Amino acid sequence: MRLADLTTPCLVLDRNILQRNIDTMVQRLERHRVPLRPHMKTAKSIDVARLATAGQPGGITVSTLAEAEYFAGHGMTDILYAVGITPQKLDMVAKLNGAGATVIVLTDDLDVAAAIAAHPRPPRTLIEVDTGEGRGGIAPDDDLLLAVAARLGPCLAGVMTHAGHSYAGRSIEAITQIAEAERAGVVRAAEGLRAAGHAAPIVSMGSSPTVRHAACLDGITEVRAGVYMFGDLFQAEIGTHELDSIALTVLTSVIGRRPGRLLVDAGGLALSKDRSIADAPRDYGFGLVLDVAGKRSFGDAVVRRAYQEHGVLDADPTYPLDISVGAKLRIAPNHTCMTAAAHDRYFVVAGTDEVVAIWPRVNGW
Amino acid sequence: MRLADLTTPCLVLDRNILQRNIDTMVQRLERHRVPLRPHMKTAKSIDVARLATAGQPGGITVSTLAEAEYFAGHGMTDILYAVGITPQKLDMVAKLNGAGATVIVLTDDLDVAAAIAAHPRPPRTLIEVDTGEGRGGIAPDDDLLLAVAARLGPCLAGVMTHAGHSYAGRSIEAITQIAEAERAGVVRAAEGLRAAGHAAPIVSMGSSPTVRHAACLDGITEVRAGVYMFGDLFQAEIGTHELDSIALTVLTSVIGRRPGRLLVDAGGLALSKDRSIADAPRDYGFGLVLDVAGKRSFGDAVVRRAYQEHGVLDADPTYPLDISVGAKLRIAPNHTCMTAAAHDRYFVVAGTDEVVAIWPRVNGW
Repeated sequence: MRLADLTTPCLVLDRNILQRNIDTMVQRLERHRVPLRPHMKTAKSIDVARLATAGQPGGITVSTLAEAEYFAGHGMTDILYAVGITPQKLDMVAKLNGAGATVIVLTDDLDVAAAIAAHPRPPRTLIEVDTGEGRGGIAPDDDLLLAVAARLGPCLAGVMTHAGHSYAGRSIEAITQIAEAERAGVVRAAEGLRAAGHAAPIVSMGSSPTVRHAACLDGITEVRAGVYMFGDLFQAEIGTHELDSIALTVLTSVIGRRPGRLLVDAGGLALSKDRSIADAPRDYGFGLVLDVAGKRSFGDAVVRRAYQEHGVLDADPTYPLDISVGAKLRIAPNHTCMTAAAHDRYFVVAGTDEVVAIWPRVNGW
Repeated sequence: MRLADLTTPCLVLDRNILQRNIDTMVQRLERHRVPLRPHMKTAKSIDVARLATAGQPGGITVSTLAEAEYFAGHGMTDILYAVGITPQKLDMVAKLNGAGATVIVLTDDLDVAAAIAAHPRPPRTLIEVDTGEGRGGIAPDDDLLLAVAARLGPCLAGVMTHAGHSYAGRSIEAITQIAEAERAGVVRAAEGLRAAGHAAPIVSMGSSPTVRHAACLDGITEVRAGVYMFGDLFQAEIGTHELDSIALTVLTSVIGRRPGRLLVDAGGLALSKDRSIADAPRDYGFGLVLDVAGKRSFGDAVVRRAYQEHGVLDADPTYPLDISVGAKLRIAPNHTCMTAAAHDRYFVVAGTDEVVAIWPRVNGW
């Protein structure tokens, strides 16, 4: 099967680029000697998880309990569910853990900590620490940290933080500074807990930008990152990924050509409506237009408008896009996590147009 | 099963509101005596399609061939695939039509028209007419219309247009004017074809705003609309839907509460990242916060930020949102078509918190 045979729109994943991205991250971490717990929220695929955990301890991070169930069912049992847990979800975690998994959960809440400790099968729990993102988590020096730890008692397994605000960094220096604040904050939280007599064996931090650009990871026991596996235009814009190393693209067909415009069958559903890139130095609309081989043959052509099933291209005047209805193109995504989520499988290539594998994804909740 | 028992995030569809929305559209069309070919791109559900086609001829509109296959498999065989066809997709259409369906396709392209006419099992085909949206379609007076018709020969079944730019209307008067331009344009195209000796039995127009607010539908043989079934905040903002008649919401759980912010487990995937509403008179962020009964108990509270699996709420100071982690809320969506697409089923209620049915959706391509 070749890309030309596929029904569009669909996801194309280049395994060679994926492997290169994974190798790059592993090489960058080698100097720190800190293990990687890859975040599977982007790929949601056991096949990708196997590549991303090669040579690592084997633990993974997930963003949904559907992912936890799927990966545990495929034998990846060391799982951090890195979204604040609710009391109701503890039964599902207990079910997975009763079947042989070790799902570690996350909280920053006193009542939830009490519910965890009172559960008949309490999971190991990390306390979420806020090191500047301002989303979830307790500040490193807040007394609430000790109060939650006390409620958790023997369930406490450590601390974790996510410097998601590193996505707002616009230089490697800025991201390196955010990484150091992330590291120092979560380590300080762990030390505060230990000084109060609590065990805190796990000290977990990470986002693709900060893990890639951290100068020091002292005191950190594991790092988490996910988007680095595929990359996207946004990550390229903030300097944490190479533009020619985006492993995931959307294969699309031209479905109309009218004077001055070309329509494709990749719209808002196939590409996602994520427009975070509007705040980046360069705005790629809803994605960058590549040829079917994944090469940048059309200059700065982008998907300018996205309807549910229609994308409208803006051609680069220097690189005419004079192609027939039915011809195929590939679109590099703005935000790979969001784009991938509309699709249930990857058509895997390895540098050519031959489809060498089909890898399923676990979507939903 | 009650809403409180469900795993979040998930879709809640209120069947009573859905039925009311369907009844309202049917009532508005009665004076025109024009049948409705409901667009199933929003609901993607046979259960909803049965309600939406009740009392109508039974034809539907779809946005993907996956929908066409699904609905044909459930006995709804009169299907308009309202996205420009490619030559490669004709085999799939032929397969469905060979199995008893009548899938009508759409083009505005000379080469595609030739490919349709040359196919061993050519489908009935509409020519897409551009009545102002500037997406696909041929202008009503463009000679290309006749050239495409000539290529199609006996496959030609008529013309269709979609005034999607009605979404940019900001008053009922403006939308009524767009509806008249849509009607007049597509009727003129049909008359041009007939004057040249072509048959054009189908003259199809529609979008939820223009169908709702059209003053006249003379010459139109069918109208299409989809989003009216569920409604959303955007449709409410442009005056084509009542704010208290949004049938689809996302059920979510509070997953964190920090000073000044509340986190829920409905983020960018569960709600979509659609921000078209930023251009509407009122910007609801990523959705309006309702209580678990679907009532507006929290004033103007909205989802202000949306990460992949986290939503961050902005409370209305007049209506404190002092609730526990684990408590459930419902979020009214900005753009219901995009929000629904991340989910594989509807949990159906009928005015109470009891789940009376689970209806699957057909996503993907």
